[in-house]
Amino acid sequence: MSARAGVVVTGTEVLTGRVRDTNGPWLADRLLELGLELAHITICGDRPEDMEAALRFQADQGCDLIVTSGGLGPTADDLTMEVVARFCGRGMVHDPELEQRIQAIVRPLLARFPRIDEEALRKGSEKQATVPEGSDVPVLEPVGTAPGAVVTPVDSDRPAIVVLPGPPRELQAMWSAAVETDAFEAATAGRVDYEQRMLRLFGMPESEIAETLRVAEPRVGGFDGLEITTCLRRGEVEVVIRATPEERARAAALEDIIAERHPNLLFSRDGSLIDDQVAELLAGRWIALAESCTGGLLAARLTERAGSSAYVAGGVVSYSNESKNELLGVDLGLIEAHGAVSLEVAEAMADGALARFEADTAVAITGVAGPGGGSDAKPVGYVCWCVKKSDGAQLLRDTRLPGGRADVRDRATTVAMHLLRRLLRGEPAV
Amino acid sequence: MSARAGVVVTGTEVLTGRVRDTNGPWLADRLLELGLELAHITICGDRPEDMEAALRFQADQGCDLIVTSGGLGPTADDLTMEVVARFCGRGMVHDPELEQRIQAIVRPLLARFPRIDEEALRKGSEKQATVPEGSDVPVLEPVGTAPGAVVTPVDSDRPAIVVLPGPPRELQAMWSAAVETDAFEAATAGRVDYEQRMLRLFGMPESEIAETLRVAEPRVGGFDGLEITTCLRRGEVEVVIRATPEERARAAALEDIIAERHPNLLFSRDGSLIDDQVAELLAGRWIALAESCTGGLLAARLTERAGSSAYVAGGVVSYSNESKNELLGVDLGLIEAHGAVSLEVAEAMADGALARFEADTAVAITGVAGPGGGSDAKPVGYVCWCVKKSDGAQLLRDTRLPGGRADVRDRATTVAMHLLRRLLRGEPAV
Repeated sequence: MSARAGVVVTGTEVLTGRVRDTNGPWLADRLLELGLELAHITICGDRPEDMEAALRFQADQGCDLIVTSGGLGPTADDLTMEVVARFCGRGMVHDPELEQRIQAIVRPLLARFPRIDEEALRKGSEKQATVPEGSDVPVLEPVGTAPGAVVTPVDSDRPAIVVLPGPPRELQAMWSAAVETDAFEAATAGRVDYEQRMLRLFGMPESEIAETLRVAEPRVGGFDGLEITTCLRRGEVEVVIRATPEERARAAALEDIIAERHPNLLFSRDGSLIDDQVAELLAGRWIALAESCTGGLLAARLTERAGSSAYVAGGVVSYSNESKNELLGVDLGLIEAHGAVSLEVAEAMADGALARFEADTAVAITGVAGPGGGSDAKPVGYVCWCVKKSDGAQLLRDTRLPGGRADVRDRATTVAMHLLRRLLRGEPAV
Repeated sequence: MSARAGVVVTGTEVLTGRVRDTNGPWLADRLLELGLELAHITICGDRPEDMEAALRFQADQGCDLIVTSGGLGPTADDLTMEVVARFCGRGMVHDPELEQRIQAIVRPLLARFPRIDEEALRKGSEKQATVPEGSDVPVLEPVGTAPGAVVTPVDSDRPAIVVLPGPPRELQAMWSAAVETDAFEAATAGRVDYEQRMLRLFGMPESEIAETLRVAEPRVGGFDGLEITTCLRRGEVEVVIRATPEERARAAALEDIIAERHPNLLFSRDGSLIDDQVAELLAGRWIALAESCTGGLLAARLTERAGSSAYVAGGVVSYSNESKNELLGVDLGLIEAHGAVSLEVAEAMADGALARFEADTAVAITGVAGPGGGSDAKPVGYVCWCVKKSDGAQLLRDTRLPGGRADVRDRATTVAMHLLRRLLRGEPAV
């Protein structure tokens, strides 16, 4: 039996959907990497009774470790530390030295916000420097202004609780300090060394992978001991296989069968994202984008990574016909003849991007994102791509994408990434 | 006592962080709109025992209604309908007519994916057409291929459960049908008509709003009966005040005090986002973007909304110095003299965008997104903005933003939105 963990995300702004939680997924990833079982992430508001109910639920589910995020701020509705202390049977104590360190972090804010209330800042620091009692409670040094803690129960039947702040940057920076504490180590002693395989496929519906699994089961000799999940994500099918040490050979056999049945659609066996692969293929190249319906999403996606300025020359968002002409040199007559959403215009946009940015690689996207602007011949969701190298090699494609405006824009970006990968690897479009 | 609801999100891909859940927040919004109390969103994987534990937890928390998302797909790990039926004390029954309707939806896939396995599709439809038993269980017609249901307990002590599919587009489209069922109406009969006020402020730390609340409490005469939450989100401070019908006057008084203390920073009292306000201010205008460090994020953000092609001319992502020169006409000597990240270059980029797109409004952003490229004078996070109208009015600003590459890019986009709002309203930069 492996050690089991749970995540409790707190914050009324997260519960009510005003802020999208990224801490739950991030913590899930870290816990699974460590070989812990994860059964539940719960999200609750700032009410102490709800927080306590969530902790109790996770404890009842047999968790050895609970990680909380949020509720450590300077305001009165930030109550997590207090609730956790009580749950672990501990009081709270003010730590004057910790308050000094928080004050040292907070003071520069006074310069940035000259009209700020100093007394408010002091009260906030005092509150944040009040932590669960006990010399055996490791306090995690603040990254923002909020310290965290690893709180173990006085009555040892309950799980250890890692208390982390809500802002993702702070939570993530504080995590490794939490993992290194003796309390964390002790609570997670029973963890198993799972092996996880991640396969990604592009260009098929999810039902197809279900059939492949049905075919594979008798050939592999049964899936007991394998945890297999499939999901459709931004148009890609992801298959994750988790195996205990005893079941690794079966996991490998299953992976081989999937690879054998879908040789052209399986694009990743090593966990790499399409973004990773495209970034690698673009090394030493110089790419320019010409975007219409995606409005800059492809440029934004390619420049997400550090170091992308080495291969991204830039892009044009040519939302209007005039800008397609003025900035990309697309002939207005061509637009009139074929329409702004056409393979011909996509190719001319790619040519224009190559020329204007003196690039060796270009991607052009033009489509009907909707909800307006569709016609019988070119309905909402109809998108054209041209991916082209300066040596003339190119892939042209058009299709109708499902969903609303946001779906069409997002999916059009993903298709562009896959076309780019295929072109740079010298493969035909699927 | 108001009617209480809970959300159970299922799916190992969501639990493990491979897919970011958007259904929890979306459902939370709908439930709160309906005046229901929401205490917990729980996320679990595809294991039936975990799903059942989550349902039981929500029921134990006094929920009158539980909404589930996910686990209705055609594959064997999609077990939600079965688990919910059992939880409600019902068996499962195959509905041949429903299967016919699902088949009619699925069949066109055969054309799109010619190599697809027909038998796999049939088995999937059969599984999806197997639903909880009972003439009193309304089945929700599929939007994708999965039907949903509103399942009431045979033993009426337990909450009614609305079972919805995982893909957000399907879940959202199916929601209104669920709300209209008698079963939904009966389960949520006790709901209260809360009033919610949402205030948004830009340009202050969260501790400042905490102090304002401390000052306001005695003036309002106590906050009992008001639910007040504050949070920092993409650089903006959001304050939400929920009030019961009896407490509305106090909520209004509190709002007035906040408005009085922060007249320049409070930009929204009606729930509108900065994006809504900018879209409104841009009506009748023609805007062009010139982006360096944000790499297209501002263009993508402005073109997110339907109808934006009426006022967005387009943009240039000028990642390289050459593209700043070639596409925006920025003098290379200016770049050499002041550096690519400078107020001078930002202004020249804005001028170039105005000219090349024949626009009347332009935003230019240049900065050091990091992690590399920083210097003592211009460290990572240093960003310059120029927001300009063709009549010469402009706002120039530079500052150092906190956080990593993604934070800097995102925050730089938000600052640009606020500068744009201020320019178009004829206000100075704060």
